[in-house]
Amino acid sequence: MDQTAPLIAAPSASVADLAEALMACPSVTPATGSVFDCLEGQLAPLGFEVTRFLAGEAPDGPVENLFAIRRGPAGARHFAYAGHLDVVPPGEGWTSAPFLPERRGPEGQEMLYGRGAVDMKGSIAAMVAAAGRVPQDAGTISFIITGDEEGPARFGTLALIDLMRERGDIPDLCLVGEPTSVNRLGDMMKVGRRGSVNIWLEVEGQQGHVAYPHLADNPITRLVAMLAELDAIVLDEGTDWFQASNLEITDVSCGNPATNVIPAKVAARISIRFNDLHTGESLSERVAQIAQRHGGTARPVISGEAFLTQPGAFSTMLADAIRAETGVEPELSTSGGTSDARFLKDLSPVIEFGLCNATMHKRDEAVAVADLDALARIFERVTLAALAG
Amino acid sequence: MDQTAPLIAAPSASVADLAEALMACPSVTPATGSVFDCLEGQLAPLGFEVTRFLAGEAPDGPVENLFAIRRGPAGARHFAYAGHLDVVPPGEGWTSAPFLPERRGPEGQEMLYGRGAVDMKGSIAAMVAAAGRVPQDAGTISFIITGDEEGPARFGTLALIDLMRERGDIPDLCLVGEPTSVNRLGDMMKVGRRGSVNIWLEVEGQQGHVAYPHLADNPITRLVAMLAELDAIVLDEGTDWFQASNLEITDVSCGNPATNVIPAKVAARISIRFNDLHTGESLSERVAQIAQRHGGTARPVISGEAFLTQPGAFSTMLADAIRAETGVEPELSTSGGTSDARFLKDLSPVIEFGLCNATMHKRDEAVAVADLDALARIFERVTLAALAG
Ligand SMILES: [Zn+2]
Ligand SMILES: [Zn+2]
Repeated sequence: MDQTAPLIAAPSASVADLAEALMACPSVTPATGSVFDCLEGQLAPLGFEVTRFLAGEAPDGPVENLFAIRRGPAGARHFAYAGHLDVVPPGEGWTSAPFLPERRGPEGQEMLYGRGAVDMKGSIAAMVAAAGRVPQDAGTISFIITGDEEGPARFGTLALIDLMRERGDIPDLCLVGEPTSVNRLGDMMKVGRRGSVNIWLEVEGQQGHVAYPHLADNPITRLVAMLAELDAIVLDEGTDWFQASNLEITDVSCGNPATNVIPAKVAARISIRFNDLHTGESLSERVAQIAQRHGGTARPVISGEAFLTQPGAFSTMLADAIRAETGVEPELSTSGGTSDARFLKDLSPVIEFGLCNATMHKRDEAVAVADLDALARIFERVTLAALAG
Repeated sequence: MDQTAPLIAAPSASVADLAEALMACPSVTPATGSVFDCLEGQLAPLGFEVTRFLAGEAPDGPVENLFAIRRGPAGARHFAYAGHLDVVPPGEGWTSAPFLPERRGPEGQEMLYGRGAVDMKGSIAAMVAAAGRVPQDAGTISFIITGDEEGPARFGTLALIDLMRERGDIPDLCLVGEPTSVNRLGDMMKVGRRGSVNIWLEVEGQQGHVAYPHLADNPITRLVAMLAELDAIVLDEGTDWFQASNLEITDVSCGNPATNVIPAKVAARISIRFNDLHTGESLSERVAQIAQRHGGTARPVISGEAFLTQPGAFSTMLADAIRAETGVEPELSTSGGTSDARFLKDLSPVIEFGLCNATMHKRDEAVAVADLDALARIFERVTLAALAG
């Protein structure tokens, strides 16, 4: 029996069936081809107009992206689902094959195993199921789906945003389905993310013999003083919605094999995760000044700015939906790494909510089948509420 | 005409002739064979009993060593010359071939070019010439000559010291012919050397993601604090005869390529040059305590202890000889790197004195022919004075 084909179009397919079909398509970053065919096959029967395109060039591209829209009545509100079909490499040691999804466990507590189960094909399947249950005249729904979120992400969601701007398809609210739940489905949503900047530091000195230090200028001495000063900075104490910004030294390197030689040059790298009291530029400038004072240089690369979708109507709608379906009161958090929400926030208010993240990026990634069903119902509720305005 | 053979034995050979013969034998560390044949050929006709032997095993051996002794009357004093026949690799860019010694320059200002000219075949030639002029009944003279001073030096002078102890041939005074002069022959002798210890530092932490620093333990943070504390230490202010001890950080290494990862481990290396207020062990212990306080470890390798031959009779004899031959008043110094004097000081009082060191270890290493003659006369004077007691 052909397992996949009927599921794609079957309006009666369960959320787990939809997820399984997506998970059966290997799609390590950058994802292209079959996994997008599969999602297009699930969306088209629901009345979505699907646009797929490749963006970017090597080494960070090409990347496949998909934008799907089902328009409601003229002037209707527009609610967007966002996510990614690419997955991180499976790694070793799985109980079952990572791209042959398998359900295991007792009746009523079944788990679905496979790469992408929670991050985030299961979540996209829940969005498809939710969209299938929301009447078309309730409003406009769109899918903003990239094949490169886990990778460099230069030609993924950014290219989708360009396309939407060109077409004038700007949503009123956007829900990113990243796995934000921690211990139980619904216990956490993310209303913002910290920003991130990496800064490469370098100090040049004057090489020499350790027996004649007055003829040399040891760059490590100055780097140590610089790093000690950077490490002592208290960036802030956190805000109502953000934890304190944090600076970590992530590398030091000199590579001087000669025990009797004072080296000519030394390098280090720091990583700052910051809240909305800072910008990547303000921090880069501050670090550069300290580096200069110690005779060094600083080269920053800003990965993303901090952002906050101020808790209010949107987060309340989502919390209401979560509480109604799970009985759990979600925490509004801004913790963790970066996600594509850092780009989407320029388009509309954005909140992230999805499955439990305990197994994401690990072997034996798995989702409870019951959670998939509950998530689809939560998405359905919040979509209806959002479209109602 | 065969240039080398007659020179070896000719009692009328000039100091430059003797030096040239030694320099014509390539002898990059570890030296063996022909250069020792050449020196043996110079010493045997002067009445020296020559002992040669190989010591040590790979990778730091085998090393050839030579001990030569000409005994004076029973109960006579014993004066020893010490030095090395190995040379550092010639490197590129020489004007003439490094192992084909060449005299160039106007009459009376001739320079002798070739690897080993000042460090220290020229000095050994001056010792040979001096020994040839000192009557045998003046006292006992010995040559303590290794083929590995520029290298690891594990099986060189240390093995010679073992041999001399076994045979009971312990000198009263020892002169090491290293190139200690700076601007003019005679302007500096070394009455001691600083000690040297290298210490490898390591800090282990707990790897983690930069977005979740509370789940990790950044070893670089602790290393920076440790190095800042080490760098702030003032070991001493120097002594009458020694400059201040000094600590340099010579390497830091982590090698973490991932910008979003807090690394598991980081390493550093320091080098301490210290005077006789410290021992390698006392410093190693002090650094280990600081390392431990920051959760790290320290692995010391002591290259040599500081030593001082208290200025007095010996240095005065040598200064008198220098002044008589050159008119220069020598500075008594303890500066610079280590030498085999760090081992010989366990045998007898030891002072280092030799040619100008401007070209040592460089291309176009060269010695003034007039300096070779003057050095031989200085060695002759100091030998006679030392044997007279
Ligand atoms: Zn994800
Ligand atoms: Zn030398």
